[in-house]
Amino acid sequence: MSLIIIGTVAFDAIETPFGKTDKIVGGAATYASLAASYFYNKVKIVAVVGDDFQKSDIDAFNEHGIDTEGLQVKEGEKSFFWSGKYHNDMNSRDTLVTELNVLADFDPVIPESYQDCEYLMLGNLTPIVQRTVIERLKKRPKLIVLDTMNFWMDIMMDDLKETLKLVDVLTINDEEARQLSGEYSLVKAAKKILTMGPKYLIIKKGEHGALLFHEDKIFSAPALPLAEVFDPTGAGDTFAGGFIGYLAKVGTINFNNMKNAIIYGSALASFCVEKFGTEKILNLTDEEVAARIQEFVKLSAFTIDA
Amino acid sequence: MSLIIIGTVAFDAIETPFGKTDKIVGGAATYASLAASYFYNKVKIVAVVGDDFQKSDIDAFNEHGIDTEGLQVKEGEKSFFWSGKYHNDMNSRDTLVTELNVLADFDPVIPESYQDCEYLMLGNLTPIVQRTVIERLKKRPKLIVLDTMNFWMDIMMDDLKETLKLVDVLTINDEEARQLSGEYSLVKAAKKILTMGPKYLIIKKGEHGALLFHEDKIFSAPALPLAEVFDPTGAGDTFAGGFIGYLAKVGTINFNNMKNAIIYGSALASFCVEKFGTEKILNLTDEEVAARIQEFVKLSAFTIDA
Repeated sequence: MSLIIIGTVAFDAIETPFGKTDKIVGGAATYASLAASYFYNKVKIVAVVGDDFQKSDIDAFNEHGIDTEGLQVKEGEKSFFWSGKYHNDMNSRDTLVTELNVLADFDPVIPESYQDCEYLMLGNLTPIVQRTVIERLKKRPKLIVLDTMNFWMDIMMDDLKETLKLVDVLTINDEEARQLSGEYSLVKAAKKILTMGPKYLIIKKGEHGALLFHEDKIFSAPALPLAEVFDPTGAGDTFAGGFIGYLAKVGTINFNNMKNAIIYGSALASFCVEKFGTEKILNLTDEEVAARIQEFVKLSAFTIDA
Repeated sequence: MSLIIIGTVAFDAIETPFGKTDKIVGGAATYASLAASYFYNKVKIVAVVGDDFQKSDIDAFNEHGIDTEGLQVKEGEKSFFWSGKYHNDMNSRDTLVTELNVLADFDPVIPESYQDCEYLMLGNLTPIVQRTVIERLKKRPKLIVLDTMNFWMDIMMDDLKETLKLVDVLTINDEEARQLSGEYSLVKAAKKILTMGPKYLIIKKGEHGALLFHEDKIFSAPALPLAEVFDPTGAGDTFAGGFIGYLAKVGTINFNNMKNAIIYGSALASFCVEKFGTEKILNLTDEEVAARIQEFVKLSAFTIDA
């Protein structure tokens, strides 16, 4: 039994109104696996890096109990690199540099020891690579979560739709839900998307929280209002990792557990943005996480006598 | 004991992607008083109209138990008129016509029978008129709620700040909170605004719900995701009216009751947008309102074992 997370492991250079970083370790699989590791101890990653990725960088995963057998290291090649600059509102950013490098021909390898996969998180990558991973698992996982973005809708909508047929949960933002469905109303968009394959749809709305749609049920999760957002990079991936990590821990897939999983994912994402890159989510204590969860409980609780 | 609502009573002509109306009755005090009337039976309005306002229009208030003694009818003059057109996303609109008419020199008259006012809702008007109403009440109400908008921040910020010193609750949207405080983070904005007079701040975020700030506490209220928003006109005023109407009914001002009041206000606002103008909130049953409240409870409830 394990949770496999596939996605980018990369270097990022980030500039925000609060400062800038040199190349630091980032990537969807990095954030998601670190987040998941707080709730589940059999997290395994599938990703590719170049030989510029240091042993100490890999150690950081292993120290969180994350299995890196599926992390390919390509000699003589360079890791995926992204550089971006956030605007003052922290809600929009410019991409300054994107170097695909090893990602350009990423062929995901699933080690034999990964075939016990019960939970699969398909981080944002081409829908074809995402589908390949599903096909290379001998037994279909109990739960497949897919994250994607507008970029793939722009250039590979048909492939994305093929892959969507195979997954249980889709996580996208509100604009992407509108693009994927052709509906402006998120209720109508969700209704359409839930006919495309996923049984659960999570619409991420950043500082406005998230919506979960399943059959005719809706859950609205709050976001924790923060005095300072230091660096939003990786918040969505941290959310997804915390989400599936919590579900792997509880082991039962139903609407109530999904709701809680969204709260756990949101709590970890709220930590992520407090420092640059992975700095904050590398070093959380269980007490900090538990206290943050209680903040979410207090934030949205109200009692109305029927 | 009564709830006084001051604001515009007006004619609107509205165009949305779903259709358009001729002149229909609108205005902040109209929406707010109708909404409040579902929870409290001593609602009194202070407003001004011209002689184009029909007796049947006034009857509609009275049929909801709303006292119109403070509604001045100016012979030979015309009512305030606003005409607007909503864009396809329904989140933005163009104002086509604004005719102030009787509103240009509105001098609010407080009938002697209104001096029992315990709850005061100051709908969006010039901050000077809002302050005049407070001054003309012989006894300070138990609760004063003020709604305003960016327009007054642009042209009368000093007057607005003077009036703010006198109120208990301020309701504005997120952009207005940023403008009033000069802070982008809503947490920081709220902290600053809570030093300006109001003890409670409600930040309205439309389809993303609302935030309530009080001392160091925050409540995040969801908005009901709707398949169809037919006409957003008056939703904010309906929210405010439902909010203060609920508080007038329960009679005790504290954070918990404020949270519930936001849910009641949000529930009425969710009805408001389902039809043009006041059509929907003119004709709600108690059962419909109770069922909608339960939808809000279900929408945001989750249970996490500590």
